[in-house]
Amino acid sequence: MQSVRAVLFDTFGTIVDWRSSLVAELSAFGAERGIAADWTGLVDAWRGAYTPSMDRVRRGELPWTKLDDLHRASLETLVQRFGIAGLTPGDLDHLTLGWHRLTAWPDSAPGLVRLKRRFIIGPLSNGNVALLVNLARFAGLPWDMVFAAEVFGHYKPDPETYLGACRLLSLEPAQVMLCAAHNYDLHAARALGLRTAFIARPTEYGPAQTKDLAPDGDWDVVASDVVDLAERLGA
Amino acid sequence: MQSVRAVLFDTFGTIVDWRSSLVAELSAFGAERGIAADWTGLVDAWRGAYTPSMDRVRRGELPWTKLDDLHRASLETLVQRFGIAGLTPGDLDHLTLGWHRLTAWPDSAPGLVRLKRRFIIGPLSNGNVALLVNLARFAGLPWDMVFAAEVFGHYKPDPETYLGACRLLSLEPAQVMLCAAHNYDLHAARALGLRTAFIARPTEYGPAQTKDLAPDGDWDVVASDVVDLAERLGA
Repeated sequence: MQSVRAVLFDTFGTIVDWRSSLVAELSAFGAERGIAADWTGLVDAWRGAYTPSMDRVRRGELPWTKLDDLHRASLETLVQRFGIAGLTPGDLDHLTLGWHRLTAWPDSAPGLVRLKRRFIIGPLSNGNVALLVNLARFAGLPWDMVFAAEVFGHYKPDPETYLGACRLLSLEPAQVMLCAAHNYDLHAARALGLRTAFIARPTEYGPAQTKDLAPDGDWDVVASDVVDLAERLGA
Repeated sequence: MQSVRAVLFDTFGTIVDWRSSLVAELSAFGAERGIAADWTGLVDAWRGAYTPSMDRVRRGELPWTKLDDLHRASLETLVQRFGIAGLTPGDLDHLTLGWHRLTAWPDSAPGLVRLKRRFIIGPLSNGNVALLVNLARFAGLPWDMVFAAEVFGHYKPDPETYLGACRLLSLEPAQVMLCAAHNYDLHAARALGLRTAFIARPTEYGPAQTKDLAPDGDWDVVASDVVDLAERLGA
């Protein structure tokens, strides 16, 4: 653990609260336009489309497509399924960019400020660069560098993402820690030699969340939040 | 000019004073080791090897090689030419990493802090990611994102670098400004549709500098330093 030089973070769920942010944004949009709809259901279905859409890219059924464009395509299908009519292409673009305006969990920015004093910090996320850069500016995340799936042309958990970040940092995998609220991400990182830290985000998926409530691997660190992670890493 | 959303910076010379920093570092190293040598001449020759070494990659004579490795190879040749004996591989590594510890011009960090309030900011540099990230931490450069030649597998002035940064930002070239102290860099950027800003750094190459003392193109902005650039861009 003394050898860790960089701490990278999964972002959606681990650093930012995408669900509350998007439910608020879409509900406000609906109220403003007088569109009554199950906006919460739409947000959950939108996130539900996330992994299947990336998997189509990972399996080679789609050429490389950045997350903004996957989000936009999913939304187009979902507004029909949820019976929402009258949205213009500009409206759909605007709502898709809601993913660039997500609120951080309260501990994220303070914890990152502390970690940055001692470690290189960055997201290692399936978001595209523009999304992650805009999100960092919106939520006050003081990243040293943004590692986006888009830079590698691969989505997590493809090995090219984890190993690509290590290569660009000129660090060995054992010198890089991934922190995530999702056990699958940590399993993939550990298999490649990275260090791992788990933070539970038990309301990421709302009050009925059933998965990732606890660590399911022997991770190097289990922390209650990002400030606690900084504490445990001596930053 | 109203459409500019991101301001990217050449780094060596434009943002950091590589020559004074390296002359100080190498001279101190020589004094500590009792090695009398023309350290200033070595630094100038080291920088002199920069463009030819990248050109070998650009012409395909070398496979992709990151700048740290080009610097290391040039240094190995130069210590022999300058009659410096007794350096270990570890010494050469340490001196090569001197490029990660360069001092910023006094106006750079204050100007970037102002620009960041209004624009996405980042380097667009031939340095590799680790170099640029370590340099930003050392010199207090508050980049939103680090655009390194290494990410694109091409060195400036190859078009893949300028257009790659625009693509990753999801911006049109006209929405991105390149600021540089080197006219050649701005000519390449402008040819691709980017906005341009020139800052003269008349002592970058020392007291006898003869090139890039003035703008040689009709750049969108000519500023006296980064703070002045912020002022002119209304940031």
